[in-house]
Amino acid sequence: MTNLLKLSFSLAALLVVFGQSDASSEDENTPAPAFPYLVPDEKPDRPLSTAVQRNYDAYSSIRPEQNELFTQFKYTKLKGFDYNDGDGTITRRDPSKVIFANGKYYVWYTCRKTPVKPVGMSRAAEATDVIPSADWDLADIYYATSKDGFTWQEQGVAVPRPPKPNPGWRSVTTTDILVWEGKYYLYYQAFMEASGLRGDYCPVAVSYADSPDGPWTPANKIVIPNGAEGEWDQHAIHDPYPLVHNGKIYLYYKSDFDERPELTPSKVRMHGLAIADNPLGPFTKHPLNPVINSGHETTLFPFKKGVAAFVIRDGMERNTIQYAEDWVSFKIASIVELMPNAAGPFVPDAFTDTEDGIGITWGISHFTNAANDWNRNHSVLTRFDCDLSRNVDDPQMKGHHMNLTPEFHYKQGLSGKQRERVTRETAELNKPSAQN
Amino acid sequence: MTNLLKLSFSLAALLVVFGQSDASSEDENTPAPAFPYLVPDEKPDRPLSTAVQRNYDAYSSIRPEQNELFTQFKYTKLKGFDYNDGDGTITRRDPSKVIFANGKYYVWYTCRKTPVKPVGMSRAAEATDVIPSADWDLADIYYATSKDGFTWQEQGVAVPRPPKPNPGWRSVTTTDILVWEGKYYLYYQAFMEASGLRGDYCPVAVSYADSPDGPWTPANKIVIPNGAEGEWDQHAIHDPYPLVHNGKIYLYYKSDFDERPELTPSKVRMHGLAIADNPLGPFTKHPLNPVINSGHETTLFPFKKGVAAFVIRDGMERNTIQYAEDWVSFKIASIVELMPNAAGPFVPDAFTDTEDGIGITWGISHFTNAANDWNRNHSVLTRFDCDLSRNVDDPQMKGHHMNLTPEFHYKQGLSGKQRERVTRETAELNKPSAQN
Repeated sequence: MTNLLKLSFSLAALLVVFGQSDASSEDENTPAPAFPYLVPDEKPDRPLSTAVQRNYDAYSSIRPEQNELFTQFKYTKLKGFDYNDGDGTITRRDPSKVIFANGKYYVWYTCRKTPVKPVGMSRAAEATDVIPSADWDLADIYYATSKDGFTWQEQGVAVPRPPKPNPGWRSVTTTDILVWEGKYYLYYQAFMEASGLRGDYCPVAVSYADSPDGPWTPANKIVIPNGAEGEWDQHAIHDPYPLVHNGKIYLYYKSDFDERPELTPSKVRMHGLAIADNPLGPFTKHPLNPVINSGHETTLFPFKKGVAAFVIRDGMERNTIQYAEDWVSFKIASIVELMPNAAGPFVPDAFTDTEDGIGITWGISHFTNAANDWNRNHSVLTRFDCDLSRNVDDPQMKGHHMNLTPEFHYKQGLSGKQRERVTRETAELNKPSAQN
Repeated sequence: MTNLLKLSFSLAALLVVFGQSDASSEDENTPAPAFPYLVPDEKPDRPLSTAVQRNYDAYSSIRPEQNELFTQFKYTKLKGFDYNDGDGTITRRDPSKVIFANGKYYVWYTCRKTPVKPVGMSRAAEATDVIPSADWDLADIYYATSKDGFTWQEQGVAVPRPPKPNPGWRSVTTTDILVWEGKYYLYYQAFMEASGLRGDYCPVAVSYADSPDGPWTPANKIVIPNGAEGEWDQHAIHDPYPLVHNGKIYLYYKSDFDERPELTPSKVRMHGLAIADNPLGPFTKHPLNPVINSGHETTLFPFKKGVAAFVIRDGMERNTIQYAEDWVSFKIASIVELMPNAAGPFVPDAFTDTEDGIGITWGISHFTNAANDWNRNHSVLTRFDCDLSRNVDDPQMKGHHMNLTPEFHYKQGLSGKQRERVTRETAELNKPSAQN
């Protein structure tokens, strides 16, 4: 790189021209080269654009393929689950993390088996004890096991709806697993009304067992309560997601808030954190909640000293993987695409209180409206794979150009209304006043 | 919100528990509520998480649908272009911006019409005067016009390859249009060797005309030269993209650099800026180049006081739309998906030296390897639509959940090699040492 010194291009002089002479401390007669061809590993001591500064300050590498928290996602259809020909009477969704025990993988999930498909949240008043409103109404928590992660055997109900008036009597959904001091804990959304009557309102309850095969004992109490009136999480504690950190239970959750009926969508979604010394509580909500400003369902895993999070679907920072070294202060680590919805990854060190998190390579997620037909509305579980693990180096997961077909793009086409607007706009250009 | 004062939840006390008491100036006996249910429009005077601070500091709205620089993209197949049944002998790619003149839209683009499909960059030594290496080798600049933006009539060659040794004798590609003081200027990549022999090396040349219908006079000189040896843009000045700002020509371009043959992909791509008082130069490269740290082809448009840019495909900030109020300091304005490649938008105020840019709603982009078959390698032009205009409010463009089908996801499946790795990893878990 010694050739650089020979260049006669004066950076200092140019900075004067561009009115940014204060950005350079060099003598104006010193020739300064343009940014080098080989990108320096360390932030160079020269004026840098705002964007190039981010290369050094915000990311572990400027190359996505060298960034440990960048990945593509690949999907595989699961074997072993029956959906009654996808007629809407059976749904499986919102899987827990996957754990490995007794020589097999375990996953828990929301399962609805009802005589008819859901009527829909907007018609929740028509829901009965056997007719569901939402896809996750009148559901129980089931579980399944697998030797290979692709073919699963449904083992039946783990946690049924408890009798009224216990929390969850209407539906128990969206569970996640904690292993703590040799015991197993399932946290779940505990509905006490059909979703859609007022919103999607619920707190979180918990059941526990000595074995992942159960039997499960419900605590029959609310373990993560809704916030007080006027607080961001007053209506919903969704997607409880426990990890172990710093000798405590760190449980992340999502809430829907800022409801403004005049807007579409009417609500925003963010994630909070609640911390406990004991799996049955009390949980203390973090004073800086919400700690993630976008996203939908919760998916997190220990990574190095900190925790990484999937931020999917909603909010300005959707389609990102974020990282918080202190488990609270989340920043964007990478921008990704085709993220799994409601992912429950296999997190080998979820409960080991690691200070050197390894990351993940796969898990179970779901597709909602899997039939692409609301008259057969149901969800299906799927497997996703990725490379977010420090133990794996899979270049096939690190490509950053998805060459999707023209046909795929044309399916994302203009509506008739949009086509009309376009025609109108072109007509405007032809008016004499618009001609230049 | 007066109820909030009644809450007994003490934020100050909690901050002490969490070791962050310095974050609060309130008396520890003062009850402090959690974050409010209705998100304050202005940044509230209370401790906020890093992520929620970004809501206020980094984005114009926390709701993507209210963010002027957030959009979905929709695609429509163009009528009027023949591709010889997609056999690889005709390609159209890298469209210019679209302009409106003489009662119709104009677009210029790279067009290759060769007796055979490209041999590929890795076999560039086999290229001849009639056998192309890359898809854009042995190309000329064609143009087409349209009354509605959907059906186009190809008008033929605008700028042909000039005779050797003029810049571009091997191929003229990836053009863009400038309208300046009543004249028209086409900037383009001027190849003097088959792409793939050493890389994708070229400078930028220019032709000019009194009418968008030509005839075009080539300046027959390099107008944006490659950087000096050792500089980031020493090999490639790609995708020249002129706009008018501050009474000058602001021409953005892309370069490939940091070539490290041991890596895949071997190069990184960023964008620079060159500024001129005269369309034929001289252009002065900005001393803070590169000004965009990711991306592939250049697509920009005036927006309010500043300029917005598509950052597609490559780099850590791919899949974003960025904004620079000063036309240099780019920051992420939104995270988007299914972005158009090599987009040439219709930018009504591209050349008006506006200080109040309106934005864009549509343009022409391309699909590479459109046949999804390298033996018929060619590219096709397509139309994209979006809502990045302050004159349009199209809620159908602002959705933030694309419910792509399970079948689509399963096409993004595991390779055989990946499946083998997964099997191996599960086997590892079954070893006695891995059992807990």
